[in-house]
Amino acid sequence: MALTPARTMPGVLELLPLDQIAFQRMLDVIRRNYERFGFLPVETPVIEFSDVLLTKTGGETERQVYFVQSTGSLEQGEKPDLALRFDLTVPLARYVAEHEHDLSFPFRRYQMQRVYRGERAQRGRFREFYQCDIDVIGKDSLSVRYDAEVPAVIYSVFRELNIGAFTIQLNNRKLLRGFFESLGVVDGEQQTLVLREVDKLDKRGADSVREVLTGAAFGLSVDVVEKILGFVQVRSTSLQDAYDKLDALGAGPESMEQGRAELKEVLGLIHAFGVPEAYYALNLSIARGLDYYTGTVYETTLNDHPQIGSICSGGRYENLAGQYTKSHLPGVGISIGLTRLYWQLRDAGLVSTANSTVDVLVTQMDSAHIPAYLELANELRGAGIATEVVLEGSKLGKQFKYADRAGIRFVIVLGENEIAKGMVTVKDLRREDQFEVARSELIKALRVELEQQQAMG
Amino acid sequence: MALTPARTMPGVLELLPLDQIAFQRMLDVIRRNYERFGFLPVETPVIEFSDVLLTKTGGETERQVYFVQSTGSLEQGEKPDLALRFDLTVPLARYVAEHEHDLSFPFRRYQMQRVYRGERAQRGRFREFYQCDIDVIGKDSLSVRYDAEVPAVIYSVFRELNIGAFTIQLNNRKLLRGFFESLGVVDGEQQTLVLREVDKLDKRGADSVREVLTGAAFGLSVDVVEKILGFVQVRSTSLQDAYDKLDALGAGPESMEQGRAELKEVLGLIHAFGVPEAYYALNLSIARGLDYYTGTVYETTLNDHPQIGSICSGGRYENLAGQYTKSHLPGVGISIGLTRLYWQLRDAGLVSTANSTVDVLVTQMDSAHIPAYLELANELRGAGIATEVVLEGSKLGKQFKYADRAGIRFVIVLGENEIAKGMVTVKDLRREDQFEVARSELIKALRVELEQQQAMG
Repeated sequence: MALTPARTMPGVLELLPLDQIAFQRMLDVIRRNYERFGFLPVETPVIEFSDVLLTKTGGETERQVYFVQSTGSLEQGEKPDLALRFDLTVPLARYVAEHEHDLSFPFRRYQMQRVYRGERAQRGRFREFYQCDIDVIGKDSLSVRYDAEVPAVIYSVFRELNIGAFTIQLNNRKLLRGFFESLGVVDGEQQTLVLREVDKLDKRGADSVREVLTGAAFGLSVDVVEKILGFVQVRSTSLQDAYDKLDALGAGPESMEQGRAELKEVLGLIHAFGVPEAYYALNLSIARGLDYYTGTVYETTLNDHPQIGSICSGGRYENLAGQYTKSHLPGVGISIGLTRLYWQLRDAGLVSTANSTVDVLVTQMDSAHIPAYLELANELRGAGIATEVVLEGSKLGKQFKYADRAGIRFVIVLGENEIAKGMVTVKDLRREDQFEVARSELIKALRVELEQQQAMG
Repeated sequence: MALTPARTMPGVLELLPLDQIAFQRMLDVIRRNYERFGFLPVETPVIEFSDVLLTKTGGETERQVYFVQSTGSLEQGEKPDLALRFDLTVPLARYVAEHEHDLSFPFRRYQMQRVYRGERAQRGRFREFYQCDIDVIGKDSLSVRYDAEVPAVIYSVFRELNIGAFTIQLNNRKLLRGFFESLGVVDGEQQTLVLREVDKLDKRGADSVREVLTGAAFGLSVDVVEKILGFVQVRSTSLQDAYDKLDALGAGPESMEQGRAELKEVLGLIHAFGVPEAYYALNLSIARGLDYYTGTVYETTLNDHPQIGSICSGGRYENLAGQYTKSHLPGVGISIGLTRLYWQLRDAGLVSTANSTVDVLVTQMDSAHIPAYLELANELRGAGIATEVVLEGSKLGKQFKYADRAGIRFVIVLGENEIAKGMVTVKDLRREDQFEVARSELIKALRVELEQQQAMG
C-alpha cells in the first residue's frame, strides 16, 4: 500500500510534548486566575448552525468562516447549514440568550476553547487558535465598576504568566466619539476611517498621516488634524497624570464628558483593585477595530516587546445578544489569543520548552524485580509524584538517555544492593547530582526538590 | 430586525455552569491520573486533511465524517479536502508518524479533546464528544507488560472519580482466535460474524443464538456451538480463579497458547501494579468491534449499572501508523468517552450539580466601602480563595439570593460595624450557619472549611 504523507494543514500549531506542557501551563495559569476572580466555566460546541453564527452578515469574518457538512448532506449536494465558530463572543451571546432563564446575573463566565478562521496561510496567522475569554454580562444594566475589575484580572494573569513587564492601556469610546464630535467629525463611519488613518502613525509617521487627513478624501483642516494627532498621543505616566491629562482635554459635548467621567472612575477603581500604577495607563489612541465596543476599551502590551502588539484586548459593549433576544444585556470582557501569544513568546525566546510533567523514571535493573519497581512507583504516585516505570528491558545507559531526552528530572535506581539495604539511588539529571536515600525518606526528599522547582517556575 | 432563535445543533451536550464545573472536575481527575502515570499531553488540530483522516476507506466511521470547507473553497464549488477528526487514534497515528524523529519511545501520550461524528440524531448519541485517551507506543516492539499498566491507570482514574464499584474486564484476541481455530472456524471474518451473534446472548438468550449459529448462515455443529457458548461465558472471580479457568480451556493451537500466556502474565502483573483483585477479571466474551486490536482487550463496567455498558475500552494493536510510515509501531491504549459517560452518570443520578468554583461572595453594604471590599477580596484571592465582589448596588437579601442560586458557599458581610471592630461576618450557605471572625483570621478559617469540603469530594 502506498503511504499517505503524515501532515497537518497550514495555519495550525501542533506542539511536541514538552512544548505542549509549556502551553498547557499557560492555559492552567489563565484558568486559575479567571476562577480566582469568580468567573464560571462555559464550553460551547465547536459547530454552530450557520444562521446562528452569521446573524451579523458581511464583513471580513464571514469571508473566513469554515462551513461543515456531514457525508450524507455532502452527497446530496445540499448547502452546508453548519459552521465552525470564529470567536467565542457570538457563541456566548447565543448561550446567554438560550439559557437566559437558568443563569444568574451579573453572569460571569470564562471560556477557553479553540476558534477557526479560514485565513490565508501566512506566517503568524492561525486558522485554529485558542481564545481565553472572560465576560461579565448584566441584565438591563451593568455598573461601570466591572470595567475596573477586568484590568485587575489581566494584571493577575500576566503577573503569574511571568513573561515580563506589561501595561494595560485604557481608553473610552464615548470620550473618543465626543472628542470627534467637538471637532465637527460627527459621522460614526467617518470617525472610524479617521482612526484607521491615525492608526498608521507609528508606521508612516505624522507627516504622511497629516497629508492624508487634510487631503481630498477627508478634507479636514490643519487645525483639526493637529488636535486629533495631539489627542491620540496622550499617554499617562501615573494615576494622577491620567486624571490631569483627561482634565486638560477641556470641555466637550455630553458623550465626551460621560466618557471622561467613566474613565476617571475606572482608573481610580483599578487602583483600589490592587493593580500597581506602573501596570496600567491611559492611551487615547486605543480604539479597537470593532464597532462593537461602546465604552471602556483595553489593550495590553509587553513593555519590552512592543512589536508583539496587544496580547489581551477587549472592552465594554452595550448589548451582547440583540440578534437573539429582546433582553438588554450589556457587558464587558477581554480575550487572550493564546496560540498566537505563545507562538510569539517562543519566537522571542520568552518561553522555553518545559520540564516534563513526569517527575521520576524508575529504571529496570533486573526484570525479576519488576514487582518492587511497581510498588515503589505506586507509592510515589500515591504521593502525587508523576512516575514512569521502565517495563521494557534495556541497558541502564539507554534508560538514562531516554529520561534525559524526555526531560524527566529524577531517575531512580533500585538494584539488588539497594533493595537489600532498604535504600534508593536517585540521580538528579537537572543538577547532575546523585544521592542515596532511605526508601522511607524518598517521598519527602523528592517533594522538597519538586516544590522548590515549582516555586522557581 | 427579526430575532434568530438561539439554539445548538442536536447531538451536542452544552452544560450550564454548575454542570460544566462537575464535568470539568472529571476531566481534571482523569488528566491528573494520566499525568501521575507518566503520560505526556498532546493536542492535535480538530481539522485534518481528509486524505490523511480517511486512509482506511470504507466502514461506518467514514459515512459519519464531517467535511470542512472555507467560504472561498465553497464559493468555487470545490470538493472539501478537510474534515473533522472522528477519533483521537487516527490523529495519534498521524502525529507519531509525522514527529517520529522528535519523540522518545516508548512514547506515552494522553490526549483529551473533542471528536466529531455525523451520527443520526438520537437520545444518547453525540455528534461532538470528549475522548480521553492514553496510549503507549513502542518502536519495533513493546513489552506485553505495558498491557498490565493500562488497567492500573483505569483503576486509578475510576477510583478517584468515585462513581461506584467497577470491574476492568480482560480478554486476548490471540486466545480468541486460537480457540476458534481449534473449532475449525479459521476465517477471521467468519470469527467476527460468530462473535457478533454471540454478542446478542444477553438480549436474545442462548436458544436464539444457538439456533442462528447452527442454522444455514453459519452451519456450525451443535457441539461446536456449545463449546463457543461455554467459552464466552467464562468470567473469573479472583486472580487464581482466572489462572484456573484459563488452564481449564485445554490445549489449543499456537495462537491460543500465546494468548493464554499473555493473559496470565498481564493478569499477574496487574496485581503487582497494586490493583485489588476485586477490580479486574477475565471475561472471554470481550472481543471489541474493531479489527484493529490484536492482543489484550479491555472493557470496564460499573458493577451496579451494567446497562451503561463499557465506560472505558481499548487494547493492544500490532501497528499504529502503517498507513503513514514504514516504521513498525505497536501500542496499547484505552479511551474514555467522557461526554457520554457524564451524560449517563447524570441520568442515573450518580453525578450531581457541583458546588460553584466561586468560594466566596463579598457583598456590598455601602458603595462608599467598595475599596475595603476590594482589598478583602484581593487578600482572599492571594490566598487562592476564589472570590467574587458585588460591584452593582442592590439590597442585601437580593445579594444573598444570588449567591444561593449561583451555588456560592460563603457570603461575607463587611458593614460599618464590622469594619470598626476589625471583624468579618461570614454566612455559610451550605451549613446554614453564620459566624463572626477577626479579619486577620478569616483566610485561615475559610481554608479549613474549604479543605474539609474538598476532602469530602
